[in-house]
Amino acid sequence: MQKINVGMIGYGFMGRTHSNAFSQVNHFFDIPYRPVLKTVCARNRDRAGAFAARWGYETVETDWRAVVESPEIDLVDIASPNDTHAEIAIAAAQAGKMVMCEKPLGRSAAESETIVRAVEAAKVPNMVWYNYRRVPAVTLAKQWIDEGRLGKIFHYRAKFLQDWTISSDLPQGGEGLWRLDINVAGSGVTGDLLAHCIDTALWLNGGIAEVSAMTETFIKSRKHNLTGKVEPVGIDDASAFLARFRNGSLATFEATRYARGHKALYTFEINGEHASIFWDLHDLHRLQYFDHRDEGATRGWRSIHITDSDHPYMKNWWVPGLQIGYEHTFIHQVADFIEGLKSGKPAAPTFRDGLATDEVTDAVLRSAKSGQWERPGG
Amino acid sequence: MQKINVGMIGYGFMGRTHSNAFSQVNHFFDIPYRPVLKTVCARNRDRAGAFAARWGYETVETDWRAVVESPEIDLVDIASPNDTHAEIAIAAAQAGKMVMCEKPLGRSAAESETIVRAVEAAKVPNMVWYNYRRVPAVTLAKQWIDEGRLGKIFHYRAKFLQDWTISSDLPQGGEGLWRLDINVAGSGVTGDLLAHCIDTALWLNGGIAEVSAMTETFIKSRKHNLTGKVEPVGIDDASAFLARFRNGSLATFEATRYARGHKALYTFEINGEHASIFWDLHDLHRLQYFDHRDEGATRGWRSIHITDSDHPYMKNWWVPGLQIGYEHTFIHQVADFIEGLKSGKPAAPTFRDGLATDEVTDAVLRSAKSGQWERPGG
Amino acid sequence: MQKINVGMIGYGFMGRTHSNAFSQVNHFFDIPYRPVLKTVCARNRDRAGAFAARWGYETVETDWRAVVESPEIDLVDIASPNDTHAEIAIAAAQAGKMVMCEKPLGRSAAESETIVRAVEAAKVPNMVWYNYRRVPAVTLAKQWIDEGRLGKIFHYRAKFLQDWTISSDLPQGGEGLWRLDINVAGSGVTGDLLAHCIDTALWLNGGIAEVSAMTETFIKSRKHNLTGKVEPVGIDDASAFLARFRNGSLATFEATRYARGHKALYTFEINGEHASIFWDLHDLHRLQYFDHRDEGATRGWRSIHITDSDHPYMKNWWVPGLQIGYEHTFIHQVADFIEGLKSGKPAAPTFRDGLATDEVTDAVLRSAKSGQWERPGG
Amino acid sequence: MQKINVGMIGYGFMGRTHSNAFSQVNHFFDIPYRPVLKTVCARNRDRAGAFAARWGYETVETDWRAVVESPEIDLVDIASPNDTHAEIAIAAAQAGKMVMCEKPLGRSAAESETIVRAVEAAKVPNMVWYNYRRVPAVTLAKQWIDEGRLGKIFHYRAKFLQDWTISSDLPQGGEGLWRLDINVAGSGVTGDLLAHCIDTALWLNGGIAEVSAMTETFIKSRKHNLTGKVEPVGIDDASAFLARFRNGSLATFEATRYARGHKALYTFEINGEHASIFWDLHDLHRLQYFDHRDEGATRGWRSIHITDSDHPYMKNWWVPGLQIGYEHTFIHQVADFIEGLKSGKPAAPTFRDGLATDEVTDAVLRSAKSGQWERPGG
Repeated sequence: MQKINVGMIGYGFMGRTHSNAFSQVNHFFDIPYRPVLKTVCARNRDRAGAFAARWGYETVETDWRAVVESPEIDLVDIASPNDTHAEIAIAAAQAGKMVMCEKPLGRSAAESETIVRAVEAAKVPNMVWYNYRRVPAVTLAKQWIDEGRLGKIFHYRAKFLQDWTISSDLPQGGEGLWRLDINVAGSGVTGDLLAHCIDTALWLNGGIAEVSAMTETFIKSRKHNLTGKVEPVGIDDASAFLARFRNGSLATFEATRYARGHKALYTFEINGEHASIFWDLHDLHRLQYFDHRDEGATRGWRSIHITDSDHPYMKNWWVPGLQIGYEHTFIHQVADFIEGLKSGKPAAPTFRDGLATDEVTDAVLRSAKSGQWERPGG
Repeated sequence: MQKINVGMIGYGFMGRTHSNAFSQVNHFFDIPYRPVLKTVCARNRDRAGAFAARWGYETVETDWRAVVESPEIDLVDIASPNDTHAEIAIAAAQAGKMVMCEKPLGRSAAESETIVRAVEAAKVPNMVWYNYRRVPAVTLAKQWIDEGRLGKIFHYRAKFLQDWTISSDLPQGGEGLWRLDINVAGSGVTGDLLAHCIDTALWLNGGIAEVSAMTETFIKSRKHNLTGKVEPVGIDDASAFLARFRNGSLATFEATRYARGHKALYTFEINGEHASIFWDLHDLHRLQYFDHRDEGATRGWRSIHITDSDHPYMKNWWVPGLQIGYEHTFIHQVADFIEGLKSGKPAAPTFRDGLATDEVTDAVLRSAKSGQWERPGG
Repeated sequence: MQKINVGMIGYGFMGRTHSNAFSQVNHFFDIPYRPVLKTVCARNRDRAGAFAARWGYETVETDWRAVVESPEIDLVDIASPNDTHAEIAIAAAQAGKMVMCEKPLGRSAAESETIVRAVEAAKVPNMVWYNYRRVPAVTLAKQWIDEGRLGKIFHYRAKFLQDWTISSDLPQGGEGLWRLDINVAGSGVTGDLLAHCIDTALWLNGGIAEVSAMTETFIKSRKHNLTGKVEPVGIDDASAFLARFRNGSLATFEATRYARGHKALYTFEINGEHASIFWDLHDLHRLQYFDHRDEGATRGWRSIHITDSDHPYMKNWWVPGLQIGYEHTFIHQVADFIEGLKSGKPAAPTFRDGLATDEVTDAVLRSAKSGQWERPGG
Repeated sequence: MQKINVGMIGYGFMGRTHSNAFSQVNHFFDIPYRPVLKTVCARNRDRAGAFAARWGYETVETDWRAVVESPEIDLVDIASPNDTHAEIAIAAAQAGKMVMCEKPLGRSAAESETIVRAVEAAKVPNMVWYNYRRVPAVTLAKQWIDEGRLGKIFHYRAKFLQDWTISSDLPQGGEGLWRLDINVAGSGVTGDLLAHCIDTALWLNGGIAEVSAMTETFIKSRKHNLTGKVEPVGIDDASAFLARFRNGSLATFEATRYARGHKALYTFEINGEHASIFWDLHDLHRLQYFDHRDEGATRGWRSIHITDSDHPYMKNWWVPGLQIGYEHTFIHQVADFIEGLKSGKPAAPTFRDGLATDEVTDAVLRSAKSGQWERPGG
C-alpha cells in the first residue's frame, strides 16, 4: 500500500488527536493509502522527542520550515496555535505538499483568504479539521436532510457551552492557554466554539444571509502568562447571534465558556416541515429524531443509538450497541481525505469551506461591535 | 343528571384521592351520572368533620355500619386500612350497595374470595382501585398490545421502588404507618407495591403460571406506635420474584422500600417480537416505544409525550404538550365505572380481577417461604 | 369561611383552567376565603349555560357589563380573547372589583398601561395569570436564585416551541383560532409564548436592558374564518431575540409555532457562577440542577423530582414520587392571590408586573422592524 | 522500554478489540512495557495474513501450538471461541507464558478449574477479559463503594439485554455464530451476557450465597451452519435469577437476546443506605448517582459525565466533556495488567476471579433445571 508521509506541526491536544487518527485509520478502514508518522515539529526539542517516542514519529524537527521543505514529507498537518496557520499553510502549499489545518483556518477571514489562495494556486489537496461533521450521528443528519426527510427547514438552533474560564484566577496566554490570548487566537469563543457550530450549520443548512450578534468579556483583565502582568482580556468569553439562512430559516447560535455545568455541550436542533433532528456532543452516539409522518398516537422523539452497521462509519467499528467516542471523528476525517485523494473528489471541508465559516465569524464580531445586522462576506 | 350518593369510609391519603375523583369527574367527562359526596365516615368525629368541610360531604358518620345501612347511600367506597375491607365490603354488598374498594382487596386471597362471593351473590357493581391501569400511557400500552403491535411477548419486567422505611427509627403501626403493621396490612411491599405491578401485568400480559420468590425484612424489629413497645416486624420490606406467564413469556418483578433515591418508581417494560414498551410512574405522561418495523437506520426508542387528543382520556383535559398527574388516574376510573353502569359492561378491575392479583401475591409469599416455584391459585 | 364571588368572562381553554382553580383551591389549601363560581359570561347563552352546568356556576350572563356591575360579584376574572381585556378590566376596576386577567394584559404596552392606571387608581387587587411562575420547580428556582445559590448570573436562555400552525390549510381568526388574528391577539408568538418566557425571566433574573430581535411569518396569507376570505397574516409565527439583562447577564429567547415535534416545550436555563438550573414544561415536575460546589468527581446535573413535601406547594398534594400537572399552577395562583388578600401583600404578578412584560414584547417587535437594538419602555 | 511479545489466538471481534488495546496502550498510558504484536494465529492462513497486515503482526501461524511453544512469545492472548480456551491456556501456562483469555474462562466451572490450576501451578501472570470493570464509570462506582459512600447495600439489580437472535431464520453454529452452538459456547446468554453482569457484581458487591433461576430457549431448533441440518438448539436464549449476596443484599439478574430494541443494554443499579448508583452500557460515559446526604430539597439523581481528569483513566484521554467509547476498556485493561507486572500486584480479574463467575453461572444453570435454590461452588 502506498504511503503518505506526514509532517506534524504541533504536539498539543490537537497534535494528539491527529496523530491518533493517522495511526488508527488503516486498522479500521480499507483505504488506498497508509499515513506514516514521519516527523513531528515543535520548538522545544525535548517535548517533540517525547511526543515522537510516544507516537512513533521517525524524526523530530524544531523548525517547521524544515518539515515543509523536506522532500520526504507528503502532507503537512498544522496542529499549532491559530497565529501560525497562515504562514505554515502557505509555505506548505507553495512547497507542493498536501495540507491539513486545525480550525479555524485563519484568525480572520482576510487571513484565511490568503491561505485559500495559496492552496488553490498550488492545487494541493487541503482540508480543515472540523471534525464534528464526522460524528456518525451528524453525518446521518446530513444524509437525511439531503434526502429531503425534514422538508422545508424553519429553524436551526446551535450552541456550544463550556465553563472552564469562569475563575478570575485563570491566566491568559502561554502554553495551554493561548486560546485566551487575542493575538494568538484571533478571537475568543467566536472563532473557537461558534466556528464549529457554524461549520456544521453551513454544511447542513446552507449559507447564512445575515446575523445580529452580541459578545461579552466577563472578566476584563487577567494575568498574562508570557508577560507576567495583568493585562486587558481581548477575547470574547461569550458570543451569541441571530441569523437568517438563505433558505429562509431562522437561527439562534450561542457559545460561551461561562455556562456552569457544561464541559463541551455542543448541541444543534433543526426543525423542518416534516421532521426534526437534535444532536448533543455530550452523548454524541445518539441522534434524536421526530417524524411527523409517523402514525399519530405513536409519534415521539426517537433516541437513535447510532451504533448499527447501517449508520455512517459504524460498520467499521464494533457491533451494534457499542459506542465510539470523540477521537473517532478525526479517524473518519483521515479516511475520507484519503478516499478523496483516490477518487479525485476532494473531501470537505476544504480550506475554501473553512473560509466560509470565517466569513460568518467575522460578521458576528462586526455585528457585535456595530449593533447592526451584518452580512457574511459582505 | 342522575346522582350517585357516595358514602366514603376513610379520610386518609386514599380518602383524598377518591374524594377528588368524585368531585372532578363531571367537570371533565360527559358521563350519565353525577357522584355526590354524601357521607364520610371515620372513627374520629372531628377529623371526619374537618374532612367533610374540606370536600363538601353533606354528613359525617363514625360507624361504617350506619353508612352501609343508610338508604341514602348508593355507593360505598372503602378507603380505610386493609383489615377493614372484607367486613365492610361484604356488608355493603349484602345491603345492595355498589362497592368500590382500595387495593389490595383483602389481606389474603382467601379473604378476598369471601368478598368476591358477596358482591357476586348480591350482583352489585364493584371495582378495585388499581388506579395505574388508567394512566393514559398505560391504557395506550394495553390498546397496542391488544392490537397485536408487539407481536409475541417474550419478556415482562416490573418493579416498584421506594425508600421511605430505611430508617430504623421509623415506628410501625398506627395512623399513617399501618402499612408496616402485618396484622393490618396483611403483608409488606408484596400486597402494597407488587400488587400494583401484578394487576397491571395480568391486564397487559395475561395470567401467571408460576413464580419463584424471595422476600426480606431488613429491619427486624421496630417500635409499635399502638403498644409503645419494640416488636418484631412482620412485613416484608422487599420482595422479588421470577415468573412464567401462561403465554410463554418470562418475567421479573421486584418491589422494595429500601431503594435509596426512588420515591414511587413503578416501571414496566414489555419486549415483543415486533416492538417494546417501557413506562415509568415518575414520568407518567410519557410512553417509551420501540418499533422494529421502522426503517432500519431510523429505529430508536420513541419518547411519546402522552398529551395529544388521540391518546386515551387526553381529549378531556388540556391541549397537547400539557401534562396531567397522578390524581387523574382516579378520575378516569370513576368515569369508566360510571360508563360501565350505563352500558352494563362493568369496568375492570372488578373484585374478581382483584382476587386474581391476590392469588399471585399469595403464591409469592408462599414461594418465599418454601423456596419452591409456586402456582397462583394452585 | 368568607366567600369570594367570582364572575368569569369567557369559557374557552382558559375559562376551564381558571374555573378548575377556583373549584379546587379549598380542597388542597388552607386559605382564608372560598371562591364561589357565581356567574359565567359569554355572548352565546347556550354555551355559557352548558359551561355553567358543568362547573356549577350559579348564573349566566351574555353581557360582561352585567357581571362587572353586579353587586354580587367580588372578583372579575377575564379569560376572554386579548382584545377584550382592557375594556373589561378597566370597567371592573372602576366598579371596585378585584380583577384577574389572562395574559398578556393588553395587546400592547400602551393598552396595558391604561389598565394598570385603572386598577391602581381604584386600588383593587389585581393579578395576571402568568401561571408558570407557580410550577413548583419554577418557584423553587426562584427561591434558590434569591438565596444566592447560583451566584452571579452569566446566562439566561429561554424558548417556547410549538408546531400547531405549520399547515397552510389552517385558517386564521374566529373561535379557537383568534390567536392567529392580529387584531384580536395583538401579535403572534411574541405576545403569546414569548410573553410567558419574559414574565418568568423578569421574575427570576430582573430587568432587561436591551434587545435585538427578528420575527417571521412563514405562511403569508390564510383563509380568515370570520370573513371567509384569504387574507394576509398579520401575526408573527416565530420570534427570537438577544437580550442584555440589567444584571449584566446575556440571554437568548425564542418562540415559534413551527418547531416540528414540540407541543408546548417551554424551557429555560440559567447559568450562574456557582450553579445552573434547567427546567422544561414537558416534564414540569422536574428541575435540573448543577452545583459546582459539589465534590469534584461527583458533580453532575441532578434531576430533581419535585414531589417532596419540602418542595414548594407539594405538601398540599400527594406523597413523594407522585407528580402533579399543568392545571395545578392555576390552583397555586389562586391560593397565593387569596393569601395576598389576607396578608395585604399582593401576590405577583400584578398588572404592573404584566405591563413590564408587555414593554419587553413591544421592544422585541420594534427591534424586529427596525433592525436595531431597542430598550424596553425606552 | 522493554517489550512484551504478544501471540494472539483468534482474529474475530475479540481479536480486534485486543489487538487495538495492545496497539494503543502506549500512546496514552505511561507504563513500563510495550506490547508488540508478534504473531497472530488462525486456522485459515489467508485470513490470519490479512489480519496481520491490518494490525501489523510480524508473523502468522495456523497452529496455536506453534505460538505457545515459540520462544519469542511472552504473552499468549486467547481470543478464540470458548471451546478452545482450556487447552490453549493450559498449554501456554505450562510453557511459562503469561496468559490472557477472553471470557468466560471455561465452558463450565469444572473446565475453568483445570485452567486455574495450570496457571497457578506455573505461576504465570493471567487475566480474563472482563472489560466492563474498566469502563471509567464502573471503576468509579467501585471506588465509591469501597470508600463506603453507599453504606450498607440493600439491592443489586443487573441486566444485559440484546435482540439479535429473535429471527427463527438465524442459523446456529459456524463462523460468527458459534455463540449459538452449545458445544462451542458451553451455554447461551448465561455464560455470554450474564457472566459480564456477574463478574461486575462479584467485584462491586462481594460473593453470592444462593440463586434461584429460570432459563428459556424460545426457538427450539435452528439450521446448523456446519452440518447444514435443522438441529435442536442447546443454548439458553434468556436467563434470569434471584440472588442473595453474602452481605445480605438481594439481587435480580437477567440476560436475554429477545429484548426488542436493545443491542447491548447492560445496566446495573445498586441501592445503599446512603446512596445509589446506576450505570448503562448504552451511555457508558455517564454514571447516575443519588446521595441522600445532599440537602433535602436539592436531592436528585446526578447524571455525571465521566470525562473529567479526576475520573478514573480519563486524564489519559482528551479534555472534559469529550467521551470515550467501548474499545477503551480493553486498553485500560492492558495498562493495568502491565502495571501489575511491574508492581507485582496482579491486576484483577485473574483466572481465579473468572472461575468465581463461572461457579455462579453453573449454579444458575443448575437452578434453572432443578427448580431449587442453588449455592455457587456448593
